[in-house]
Amino acid sequence: MGKADLLIYGCAIVAMNGKNFIENGAIVVKNGVIASIGKSTSVENIRAEKKINAKGKVALPGLINCHTHVPMTLFRGLVEDRPLDSWLKETIWPLETKLKPEDVYAGALLGCLEMIRSGTTCFADMYFHEDMVAKAVEKSGLRGILAEGIIESGNKALGERMFERSIDFAKNFRGHANGRVGVMVGPHAAYSCSPSLLIKVGVAASQLKVGIHLHLAESNTMFKKLGKKRGPTEVESLAKAGFLEGHVLAAHCINLSMNDMRILSERGVNVVYVPVANMKLGLGVAKIVDLLRFGVNVSLGTDGAASNNVLDMFEAMKIGSLLQKIFYKNPTVLPAYDVLKMGTIDGAEALSLEKNVGSLEKGKKADIVLVDLSKPHLKPLHNIYSSLVYAARGSDVDTVIVDGKILMEKGQVTTLDEQSVMEKAETTAFDLVCR
Amino acid sequence: MGKADLLIYGCAIVAMNGKNFIENGAIVVKNGVIASIGKSTSVENIRAEKKINAKGKVALPGLINCHTHVPMTLFRGLVEDRPLDSWLKETIWPLETKLKPEDVYAGALLGCLEMIRSGTTCFADMYFHEDMVAKAVEKSGLRGILAEGIIESGNKALGERMFERSIDFAKNFRGHANGRVGVMVGPHAAYSCSPSLLIKVGVAASQLKVGIHLHLAESNTMFKKLGKKRGPTEVESLAKAGFLEGHVLAAHCINLSMNDMRILSERGVNVVYVPVANMKLGLGVAKIVDLLRFGVNVSLGTDGAASNNVLDMFEAMKIGSLLQKIFYKNPTVLPAYDVLKMGTIDGAEALSLEKNVGSLEKGKKADIVLVDLSKPHLKPLHNIYSSLVYAARGSDVDTVIVDGKILMEKGQVTTLDEQSVMEKAETTAFDLVCR
Repeated sequence: MGKADLLIYGCAIVAMNGKNFIENGAIVVKNGVIASIGKSTSVENIRAEKKINAKGKVALPGLINCHTHVPMTLFRGLVEDRPLDSWLKETIWPLETKLKPEDVYAGALLGCLEMIRSGTTCFADMYFHEDMVAKAVEKSGLRGILAEGIIESGNKALGERMFERSIDFAKNFRGHANGRVGVMVGPHAAYSCSPSLLIKVGVAASQLKVGIHLHLAESNTMFKKLGKKRGPTEVESLAKAGFLEGHVLAAHCINLSMNDMRILSERGVNVVYVPVANMKLGLGVAKIVDLLRFGVNVSLGTDGAASNNVLDMFEAMKIGSLLQKIFYKNPTVLPAYDVLKMGTIDGAEALSLEKNVGSLEKGKKADIVLVDLSKPHLKPLHNIYSSLVYAARGSDVDTVIVDGKILMEKGQVTTLDEQSVMEKAETTAFDLVCR
Repeated sequence: MGKADLLIYGCAIVAMNGKNFIENGAIVVKNGVIASIGKSTSVENIRAEKKINAKGKVALPGLINCHTHVPMTLFRGLVEDRPLDSWLKETIWPLETKLKPEDVYAGALLGCLEMIRSGTTCFADMYFHEDMVAKAVEKSGLRGILAEGIIESGNKALGERMFERSIDFAKNFRGHANGRVGVMVGPHAAYSCSPSLLIKVGVAASQLKVGIHLHLAESNTMFKKLGKKRGPTEVESLAKAGFLEGHVLAAHCINLSMNDMRILSERGVNVVYVPVANMKLGLGVAKIVDLLRFGVNVSLGTDGAASNNVLDMFEAMKIGSLLQKIFYKNPTVLPAYDVLKMGTIDGAEALSLEKNVGSLEKGKKADIVLVDLSKPHLKPLHNIYSSLVYAARGSDVDTVIVDGKILMEKGQVTTLDEQSVMEKAETTAFDLVCR
């Protein structure tokens, strides 16, 4: 092997291809790809442009946040302790109508910065002016599966316009930023898009061969307001319309019947579990343990910062596990390893990226996170999975690598000017609220 | 006013005596006490031994963790995803029989270090060899209300011995470490101590004028195994025995009837809400919203690291609020300010320390925490309370002061050698498990 681009050595490795754990490991990266991974023996013979001595750290696959609205960092903490309905209609949606592309860019950069700092290397996003999120992905060095959102809300012309924009975005940004941008289409939800629009979205997605990212069964109230109290469930109506045939990424999935779960399993729908936002808005608990029994692929997301209020996937993993334990009154469900799987390889599968990322394996893209284990709250280290899920926080992330490129090293972000990103976002947010 | 010991200026202040918020404030400390607090005007005229420019930070009262077993950091991550009963009986209790005083000291120091790092300045602890925890309090500079635990478990002689030790500890360590150590007696729970022992504890506590720290209504299973399925509830039996007359600090309080809540309210029992550990062990949700309606004083705790797995009160505040919202399916309950109150002034009241700590006021002890707001996940700052509760983490704590003494400044712990505390605790834990 010729000279490598990057050698990481001396670290523990949690590869997430099975429960393989290497205590003293090394990873060689070449052309953005993991060229070799294994024990840290005779690393002194490996030639590399850059070497990272990662003693006291653990390498794991970059975390994958499968449901967020990154630019909503602008609204973090703005409306608190309020129900979803009034939260959306009285504050969030009115503010969103005032959003300019440059606002979205400022918020997206702040979100990308926060994600880098907390060990997320890939995220699935749905928002407006999504081209600005693509720009932030390009600038920050992260990987993103992006969708321009579609909200009809009873206004057909609006729905049509947003549909066109969503399709255009998907056509124009596929493979953007050296392939780090992937695309989906983003119908907001069954309560904000009409059945006919949803059918149209489904057909277009199938023609374009892209996935669909939507909110599903998040709020019974919102869906029932449509007068469907006695009719089919949200899942049943979507299934009947042929909407669930392609690759679907369905966030929340709280209000599901057993039949709904069966349908999601049969159609291979990818569920995104969003524990923190679901708790914060008091919406209900997604029955993840049952979904897993039905064989559904479940990934994990934070939602936007306006309803979480952070984009920290470590927190989402811990709270996600805890919420299932308390809901089922059973401490054995969703153990640490399983939820770490949700945050990595199962997330990759939900985004059709499982061949490229989600685990540390030879030939996969080098999306790697180093977590510093030399912290009081991570000592003693009896069990690496429980340390990572129940004790680690986003702030324990030391180094972040995407496509073999270092985005953060020893807590220093390399791709973004942290101070100016924070200032710009704060100014933008304050201006937006006063507009 | 003569020369002060410490001046902190240029920071926001969240004083927690009502919703007073100072945007650009200053705090003067003299002889361990807050000599003045207010706007940061003409601070250049204030003479002080030490000045801290705290621009970009917010000062708040040190957080108060009202229920923990600090030395259990040794067991962090050791037994995971297991029910309380087998968790205690198969792993924790057998290991605890092997504990030597020096093990407890090593674990306690690690816990104190973790608490300093995450902004806790005062904690209520119950464990064995509690004199070692007092020693760790003395060394670390923290404040602690400590109780030697009493577990009878059907063995009368054992119960008697532990009772004597608990009483001796309370007699000998009251006011230890320049008054930073306060004492209680610590009967473990109604399922692990006989009614006659509990009555004896109640009488002794009353004579000594100390509070009682116990686990209450944590597990229906454990209590019902005593054959009390149809008899009085745990609270009713304790009340009947006259046990709830004095100052009682009751952790968990999950399984309460409305009548139990009325009793707790009438007797002025202080409840400790322990959301993270309750979720992790799948035990149930304490009905905090109802308890507050009954006028019960509710404080907040983390429990030991073996069932949490961290001592981070910021996390406990966030999860504590979220858990009530999801339990009551109402996002408006337990808003940010209220849960911050639980973590500060209500915690002080639970420990009878409300005249000394829990809020930043002239004449109170200078137990102050500075949180660094210049972080991506804390931007923009729309609302300080929601930032502190829903977005901040323990790792955002920059500076910690207890009794006017700096325990950590700009992330550097001054009272403990961090590396050696971590190493010693890890070696001890590994040795203990193999013993």
